[in-house]
Amino acid sequence: MTAPAVILSRPQMGENIGSAARAMKNFGLSDLRLIAPQCEWPNDRAMILASGAGDIIEAARVYATAAQALADIRILFATTARGRDVLREILTPQAAAARLRAAEAEGLKTAILFGSERAGLDNDEMSLADAAITIPTSKFSSLNLGQSVLLLGYEWLKSADATPPVRTRKTQAVPSPRAELIGLFEHLERELDAAKFFYPPEKKEAMVRNIRAMILRSHLSDQETRTIRGMIVALAKNKWRGSPR
Amino acid sequence: MTAPAVILSRPQMGENIGSAARAMKNFGLSDLRLIAPQCEWPNDRAMILASGAGDIIEAARVYATAAQALADIRILFATTARGRDVLREILTPQAAAARLRAAEAEGLKTAILFGSERAGLDNDEMSLADAAITIPTSKFSSLNLGQSVLLLGYEWLKSADATPPVRTRKTQAVPSPRAELIGLFEHLERELDAAKFFYPPEKKEAMVRNIRAMILRSHLSDQETRTIRGMIVALAKNKWRGSPR
Repeated sequence: MTAPAVILSRPQMGENIGSAARAMKNFGLSDLRLIAPQCEWPNDRAMILASGAGDIIEAARVYATAAQALADIRILFATTARGRDVLREILTPQAAAARLRAAEAEGLKTAILFGSERAGLDNDEMSLADAAITIPTSKFSSLNLGQSVLLLGYEWLKSADATPPVRTRKTQAVPSPRAELIGLFEHLERELDAAKFFYPPEKKEAMVRNIRAMILRSHLSDQETRTIRGMIVALAKNKWRGSPR
Repeated sequence: MTAPAVILSRPQMGENIGSAARAMKNFGLSDLRLIAPQCEWPNDRAMILASGAGDIIEAARVYATAAQALADIRILFATTARGRDVLREILTPQAAAARLRAAEAEGLKTAILFGSERAGLDNDEMSLADAAITIPTSKFSSLNLGQSVLLLGYEWLKSADATPPVRTRKTQAVPSPRAELIGLFEHLERELDAAKFFYPPEKKEAMVRNIRAMILRSHLSDQETRTIRGMIVALAKNKWRGSPR
């Protein structure tokens, strides 16, 4: 499976190229191409801003023209913040990521094209793309080059990421079996009874139900159930010490 | 509907606070809070990096302790890159955004807590959060503070964004009626016939079918259909000029 190339057209600042490389590496992208960079190249600021992604900067390929940089690309999406007067599909980053994955699954080389910091992509460059990508923002829309690469890389990784939306660390932790929980309930209720907590008595049943629901909502593990029982023992012991029966 | 507060704990560099503010504004967030900033405050570099989001920097509130900064927050998620030895839910940014939206719909004040650049959040701070958020990355995981705020803000905006995944600019453009397309097909095939394009003749039917499919795939508008017919007229005229019949 190949990952999309990130192609920067006429980038102006080494810092932004470095940020783009760092963003790429976070999300598993490595093929960086530059079309006619407007800053000197190689570039010290790019290496510094790339942080741990200097390998991507060192391997970056530089081309004189878009046609050369894009020669082997079969599916090309171009990022744009502005409306264009051309009939062309505009994709959200998420939709674009899904299409890139589908193309890659067929063995097709893909790329995302980013314009220069000041002017974005010109119409000639846009005319080479299969579709445009626009990142949704509020009315204030001011994303720099590194941020745009970051968001597209993120969506690309996410589109094949198997991380469950909600998980719990400590995977060894399993929810307590009901017996342990019932043991906890009975222990707690016994101690509360002894402490005359349930008053008036006719409310006891509803109070017990509420306490049990509150405990169950926290999905206790075995260890946590034992911890709470230990807390009850400690508290009850202490109280008895104060007023022995 | 309130938006989540962005709370930065012990931020070290004004640049990063500025980047965070700029990221926030792109996605409709405005409530920025700082816990014990380690840089001087107010901070010139923060204002510069905020770019058009200086209003967020100016309105940022500074607190001495996490407890003060979080006092009015009812739902709090804390970002972390590292595993923690505590049984706590870990959410993807997307799942966190959905929960934030749901809480906001109930009128609850929400916030996302970010740790310092060097050390992240300490365990005391984590212990105040309802759940953790971890941004999925490749094995290389090196997101700075501004980038983390950017990705969380993006997911928050996206979770209520109604942008269709795929759209086409120029909404006035409607697909050509079949009659126009058929007119184009017949015109093109007539000219190709005249040019002896269909050879051998028994292949003509299949070739016509392929050409028609190719044209239909591009979902031509009225104007585009007319443009193509004009191109055919021009090409055919030119050819006849070269070899008049």
